[in-house]
Amino acid sequence: MSSIATSDRLRIEHDLLGEREIPADAYWGIHSLRARENFPISGSAIGGQPGLVKALACVKMAAARANRDLGVLPADKAGVIVQACQEIIDGALHEQFIVDVIQGGAGTSTNMNANEVIANRALELLGEAKGRYELLHPIQDVNASQSTNDVYPTALRIAMCFSLERLLVAMAELRSAFEAKALEFGDILKMGRTQLQDAVPMTMGQEFLTYAVMLGEDEARLGEARMLMVEVNLGATAIGTGINTDPDYSPLAVQYLAEITGLPLVRAANMIEATQDTGAFVQLSGVLKRVACKLSKTCNDLRLLSSGPQSGLNEINLPERAAGSSIMPGKVNPIIPEVVNQVAYEVIGNDMTITMASEAGQLQLNAFEPIIAWSLVKSISHLEAACATLTHNCVKGITANRERLAQAVQRSAGLATALNPVLGYEAATRIAREAMRTGRPVAELVLEAGLLDAETLAQVLKPEVLTKPYRYRA
Amino acid sequence: MSSIATSDRLRIEHDLLGEREIPADAYWGIHSLRARENFPISGSAIGGQPGLVKALACVKMAAARANRDLGVLPADKAGVIVQACQEIIDGALHEQFIVDVIQGGAGTSTNMNANEVIANRALELLGEAKGRYELLHPIQDVNASQSTNDVYPTALRIAMCFSLERLLVAMAELRSAFEAKALEFGDILKMGRTQLQDAVPMTMGQEFLTYAVMLGEDEARLGEARMLMVEVNLGATAIGTGINTDPDYSPLAVQYLAEITGLPLVRAANMIEATQDTGAFVQLSGVLKRVACKLSKTCNDLRLLSSGPQSGLNEINLPERAAGSSIMPGKVNPIIPEVVNQVAYEVIGNDMTITMASEAGQLQLNAFEPIIAWSLVKSISHLEAACATLTHNCVKGITANRERLAQAVQRSAGLATALNPVLGYEAATRIAREAMRTGRPVAELVLEAGLLDAETLAQVLKPEVLTKPYRYRA
Amino acid sequence: MSSIATSDRLRIEHDLLGEREIPADAYWGIHSLRARENFPISGSAIGGQPGLVKALACVKMAAARANRDLGVLPADKAGVIVQACQEIIDGALHEQFIVDVIQGGAGTSTNMNANEVIANRALELLGEAKGRYELLHPIQDVNASQSTNDVYPTALRIAMCFSLERLLVAMAELRSAFEAKALEFGDILKMGRTQLQDAVPMTMGQEFLTYAVMLGEDEARLGEARMLMVEVNLGATAIGTGINTDPDYSPLAVQYLAEITGLPLVRAANMIEATQDTGAFVQLSGVLKRVACKLSKTCNDLRLLSSGPQSGLNEINLPERAAGSSIMPGKVNPIIPEVVNQVAYEVIGNDMTITMASEAGQLQLNAFEPIIAWSLVKSISHLEAACATLTHNCVKGITANRERLAQAVQRSAGLATALNPVLGYEAATRIAREAMRTGRPVAELVLEAGLLDAETLAQVLKPEVLTKPYRYRA
Amino acid sequence: MSSIATSDRLRIEHDLLGEREIPADAYWGIHSLRARENFPISGSAIGGQPGLVKALACVKMAAARANRDLGVLPADKAGVIVQACQEIIDGALHEQFIVDVIQGGAGTSTNMNANEVIANRALELLGEAKGRYELLHPIQDVNASQSTNDVYPTALRIAMCFSLERLLVAMAELRSAFEAKALEFGDILKMGRTQLQDAVPMTMGQEFLTYAVMLGEDEARLGEARMLMVEVNLGATAIGTGINTDPDYSPLAVQYLAEITGLPLVRAANMIEATQDTGAFVQLSGVLKRVACKLSKTCNDLRLLSSGPQSGLNEINLPERAAGSSIMPGKVNPIIPEVVNQVAYEVIGNDMTITMASEAGQLQLNAFEPIIAWSLVKSISHLEAACATLTHNCVKGITANRERLAQAVQRSAGLATALNPVLGYEAATRIAREAMRTGRPVAELVLEAGLLDAETLAQVLKPEVLTKPYRYRA
Repeated sequence: MSSIATSDRLRIEHDLLGEREIPADAYWGIHSLRARENFPISGSAIGGQPGLVKALACVKMAAARANRDLGVLPADKAGVIVQACQEIIDGALHEQFIVDVIQGGAGTSTNMNANEVIANRALELLGEAKGRYELLHPIQDVNASQSTNDVYPTALRIAMCFSLERLLVAMAELRSAFEAKALEFGDILKMGRTQLQDAVPMTMGQEFLTYAVMLGEDEARLGEARMLMVEVNLGATAIGTGINTDPDYSPLAVQYLAEITGLPLVRAANMIEATQDTGAFVQLSGVLKRVACKLSKTCNDLRLLSSGPQSGLNEINLPERAAGSSIMPGKVNPIIPEVVNQVAYEVIGNDMTITMASEAGQLQLNAFEPIIAWSLVKSISHLEAACATLTHNCVKGITANRERLAQAVQRSAGLATALNPVLGYEAATRIAREAMRTGRPVAELVLEAGLLDAETLAQVLKPEVLTKPYRYRA
Repeated sequence: MSSIATSDRLRIEHDLLGEREIPADAYWGIHSLRARENFPISGSAIGGQPGLVKALACVKMAAARANRDLGVLPADKAGVIVQACQEIIDGALHEQFIVDVIQGGAGTSTNMNANEVIANRALELLGEAKGRYELLHPIQDVNASQSTNDVYPTALRIAMCFSLERLLVAMAELRSAFEAKALEFGDILKMGRTQLQDAVPMTMGQEFLTYAVMLGEDEARLGEARMLMVEVNLGATAIGTGINTDPDYSPLAVQYLAEITGLPLVRAANMIEATQDTGAFVQLSGVLKRVACKLSKTCNDLRLLSSGPQSGLNEINLPERAAGSSIMPGKVNPIIPEVVNQVAYEVIGNDMTITMASEAGQLQLNAFEPIIAWSLVKSISHLEAACATLTHNCVKGITANRERLAQAVQRSAGLATALNPVLGYEAATRIAREAMRTGRPVAELVLEAGLLDAETLAQVLKPEVLTKPYRYRA
Repeated sequence: MSSIATSDRLRIEHDLLGEREIPADAYWGIHSLRARENFPISGSAIGGQPGLVKALACVKMAAARANRDLGVLPADKAGVIVQACQEIIDGALHEQFIVDVIQGGAGTSTNMNANEVIANRALELLGEAKGRYELLHPIQDVNASQSTNDVYPTALRIAMCFSLERLLVAMAELRSAFEAKALEFGDILKMGRTQLQDAVPMTMGQEFLTYAVMLGEDEARLGEARMLMVEVNLGATAIGTGINTDPDYSPLAVQYLAEITGLPLVRAANMIEATQDTGAFVQLSGVLKRVACKLSKTCNDLRLLSSGPQSGLNEINLPERAAGSSIMPGKVNPIIPEVVNQVAYEVIGNDMTITMASEAGQLQLNAFEPIIAWSLVKSISHLEAACATLTHNCVKGITANRERLAQAVQRSAGLATALNPVLGYEAATRIAREAMRTGRPVAELVLEAGLLDAETLAQVLKPEVLTKPYRYRA
Repeated sequence: MSSIATSDRLRIEHDLLGEREIPADAYWGIHSLRARENFPISGSAIGGQPGLVKALACVKMAAARANRDLGVLPADKAGVIVQACQEIIDGALHEQFIVDVIQGGAGTSTNMNANEVIANRALELLGEAKGRYELLHPIQDVNASQSTNDVYPTALRIAMCFSLERLLVAMAELRSAFEAKALEFGDILKMGRTQLQDAVPMTMGQEFLTYAVMLGEDEARLGEARMLMVEVNLGATAIGTGINTDPDYSPLAVQYLAEITGLPLVRAANMIEATQDTGAFVQLSGVLKRVACKLSKTCNDLRLLSSGPQSGLNEINLPERAAGSSIMPGKVNPIIPEVVNQVAYEVIGNDMTITMASEAGQLQLNAFEPIIAWSLVKSISHLEAACATLTHNCVKGITANRERLAQAVQRSAGLATALNPVLGYEAATRIAREAMRTGRPVAELVLEAGLLDAETLAQVLKPEVLTKPYRYRA
């Protein structure tokens, strides 16, 4: 795989299939070139995922340090490899990661691309020409003691840890926004609804607090799923047996990797299992799907509560973010919740992709990790963006139509439920039905029928009685 | 596989694994017994699917006739096999089909169960004891010229044809119910909505006709998918090469099967492809999913339009079908649309199951047809039941709240759209915004601003102008 | 809702919609009857889910005790209600739970069915005729302080706890079976495979231990998901505000329920959120999907490793459980893994159904819990059955083809990987390619080329070197 | 919405929410700017979908011509609008389509972006400054007689027609490649397999022809689904009633659009239904899922048949496209089929996204068409790329291991099936079992047992007898 400069603008590299010309200034090499030709699928290169690229560099840096300590790599080679990795972690050379995000080969092309970029940058740091692999070799040196099958999933897990961290921050901000609204709306009495039918009163504060609580639970579950990511198989090499590694390599490399990333990484208890298993990714995606379901449900509610304004529920107003229509003047639409709904549908679709890819693993490896990785990256980053736009472009600006809400409670037949304990279910049913039929207030009908005196009735219909448990009996 | 009576109550049968005792009065035999022991999964036996059981009997009857004509089966054996099959088609012995609907073995257990029941009933018809397979053999005779791999998918396709027929009838009834409502509501003007926001006027007749039109399109698409079912692989035997069959068998058997079923069955153009391919089932399920999506959307609309009654849209009333709540007196819920929604979710889930099972086929066979069959049976029959209950327990009894609807149109800012062609988008926007802000009618504001004279305005806001294209310019 | 006996065989009951005749000996009443008519969907009644029926009785018992303590129910009524519940917990009257598992109304019909059966049995215990609800009322008394919206999800969660317990036992048994096989196969060297291509050696013990480890992890995750089920909303009533309950009711009822069930139940931190949220069910289903994916992958592997026997991998033999074919004599198929695959596909489909139902919740309630419940019940019980049949009818009887496996390792080009550390990647590549091209053993080629001496080579190719990390350098 | 130049580098635009600065050289305007701020989700702009951008320009051009003919637009404005559209169709200005592919608002932002780019380019063509909307207005003029709700779905359908055309070409090329291989392998006898177990003989030509036949059927089904795309709702405007349009507009605009695109476009029979319904997209996605399932199954087979080489089936060789491993020297992996599998999983996930988005439509519109569009675009274009790389980088280079295949048939117990008609199922079973147990050829055992004479046996085992129907009886 050594290369010969054919001109100022090209160099020759070879692999087991033969020779190919590579642009002389490219940090990537023959393996990346072949991958680009084999997988012209999505047009998105892995360089567009800075999280994954940086994580790969972290892994390569940790491996180089461990290899140096164990005498597998001489200190000078290890030194420039580490330096090249640091530059990538700092944001350099990402555009050199040219292979498609959708690729065959279980991530081999991604790993090879990393090996080549790091090797060529390291050669430069040594003052040598790119492609002089006989001096520092992408596989022999950069990939020493490694296999795609441990490097790639380890890098994925690190990338997930960092992107989940950002998602959790965005979720917490959204939760805070809902909590603030819950406080703001704490004194507004409104009709709660079940099955879209008027049910019993509650405060709008209670309603909005629910969205915050849901998010809080999801954050907790997502935090747990994130902890499944810290178990890595670095040192497993090809199938988990650790072939081609020193017995001390894996613990040492994982220790270095924990230092480099600042993550509490641990070695998998069983490296063979860890090398073929994608269960943690399925579970993470399942939790992301949970988050998506609930965000979508929340946005459905926001769209419903703000429907109208005239022929809808019209309980709340979402901030106006754009002219809603190219034909209907003055129309303003719930476009921010709508985009969140769509991200949710995408996340749920991604979960199906991940499920199928995971189920399709065979024997000692799952060859389909690239599509798992790509799907997870999209789910996490799009959810983060969705939470952020929902927080800042929608929830923070929501206002309530207090007057309309108050009126609705007064005229609601749903108040009859509060009379169950004092009148019994069957009498309360008669009152409720009459209220619905006539449109007259429940209170009026109860008094008219002489079922309760005015004082008792007033007591039973007080907001604090209606919106929490209450002891009716002396 | 001959059997020896061990007692009045048991007989002995054997297969390649050894001997087993079978209840003397059972029509099923050792293969069915083993299947029941191997697959104690769902507790639902295939006997609970009369469509499949009858279709199996049709196939066996057709095969027996073809075998008789070709000299593969003597006429007396063929005669009693045909008679036994006819009894099953007429509804007998279904409880003898004991194997679980979820089973391994690509349907072999189902086929074996059919072979055994038919053989034992045929033996009875010959005046012989059940289990005397040396006289008439479940495999050698009943299954002659056949393999599970052609019998089972052929029977599935026939069962699908009949169950789709019933579904199409139920859909047509539902469509008629919506058409009748469209007629009934033809003169009711109401606000149309996009993105849950008030848009422009339409009639409720237009709104309800939409549901009928959607169903009509789905019926057309489903009818096309049903036609994919009439292509069968009977005669393909093990892998589609037709091994163990006479060259005339397949055409003859399919011809008989078409006569018996009354279906326009044809032989697959490529029998090897037809034996391993489950694409037609995936496509059918995809169309059922389409039906489910649209039924679900329709039911979401019905629930939304009937929401309230007081704090909701309250445009229509669904018939009351049950007390809605064990706690809220007088509450009536949209329970019929709700059950349809749930069937839709089930159908969509079944589609995923079918997709995975289909993708998992390997080489010359798909071993997972039983779960495809079971999922399709549930999707089709539950959709049929859902359409029926929606028709009879909901749509037919829907009433409209005419007064409320009329008022809503009058006060809607959405009328401003109708002014676009005469005022321009920007002026219409100002009017719409003011109408929303003040709650005053659009017409009033236009007149007040002197933008149009009363006559022109009245002309532009006539229902027939609002609800269809209109030439504003002379 | 009191009833009048119209004859020996019928009684009359009424609800807000009118009167209906009920068979005099039926424990169910008018609400159940209407539900049966409204929802003729699946033909499966909730009585076929003993776990759910018993859990409902537990909830009703706990409520009755709490209501008695708080003076909401007189002691005599509470006493017979408790006694009726105990009988149901002990297995009685399940056939009286007649409503369809797929139903609209958010579980109201299920709750009403329970209320009616318990009321009528309690009336009998009081020596009164069924239907004399003026003495003991299904809603007023049995359902006192309750709503479907807290009773139903609480019962579901209890039912899930118990069914998950059984699934975990079945998974542990399957894990043990794999562990035993791992021990039995510990000394068998074989070729590991990645991407279906020969990779590097491992022991079959390592391979089978992987399946056990996977299951162990899944058990841990499922145990965590089960803990999400112990948080209940009993006392939340209609929308979570606890309307119609005494402030002491909810803590007391939950405490009783914990005693009755023996489960570590706790009240949800926010009852309004708990009443509308189905996130825990989505997460549970997501973990079940994870289990399904990995069981399916494991079964794919078993089918692959046992493929052939002559034209396949033929590394292991699955126990013969049935004649495999109705046409191919002597053929034995991997029918047990196949049925497990299909259960996995079903679980994955159910997850989609649950996801859609969960996302469709609106405002203060999710009306679609019945299909969530039914889907979870099927997923859990079918997985349990699948694990059991896989354990007993397959894994325990697996044998290995030792000779064939040993030969395969000797002739494999995959041994070249072991030479990387001593020869380098490029030289090892040349040896591997020549071995593949010529079919000659790697060892022979290395010696012939004089790359290593025989002693070093033997050292490098020892099983203990090949199957774990190894320090090549002095 | 007129604009005022504030500097050389910025101009001011306004909408109903206020004023914003726009870069003076931008063709997009204030609506696009707000959309970019509201939806920073995926980072992919619609400009990256040339098909959609061109289709939008086609629609705008058709509308402008119809508006000109009907006197709604003066000829000079219409002229420059048409010219601007033509430039976009020819590939210009795509980078000005800046809104995110994932967006709320039912496509309004996409439509507004198109209106703004076209208006500003048209202004330029008039010799006016960008932003002088009082001369030519993005909404009033470019969008005249239109709404997002008819423009956007019409454009989508046109884009789908063209991208499906390209997919169909790629599928046909793949089919041809399989047909060529079927011819090349027509004389190779091999063992067919069911349930991964040896079944009965077939030719490899038959096996490969199957893949071609499957593709052919999928092409036919996809062609049918494509025909669902030609029905458009242009002229429906906001909700399908055609408000704001001349009665002649819709037929005229669709006629122009058919001319411009060369597609056989027709107006939807019911424009209200067509405006809210996404059933055709669901069905199209369902058929794409079918294609994905079968491509994936085909690739699973290719990976299986090429497994090994030494410890696998090793029946065929896939062309080597890359070094397979960063650790295992000389390993070559089935990376092309693997990438196709992953595209298939993605398509299946996209189908779920589309299903959810479709089901979520409400009343007169589906607000979630942007995610439907984006998912379909990815499914179609990635499938096209997958077919192309499979054709050129894999199928065309497949070779068969003839010798190995011939030996396998000779030693296979599966030959016993061919003896059924002459020996009977039970005797054939005994021979098959002995062949498996001893490893001796079936033919040898039959002769040894004196069951058939050599001549008859030879006749029964001839390839032409084994691989198609055969008349055994005289």
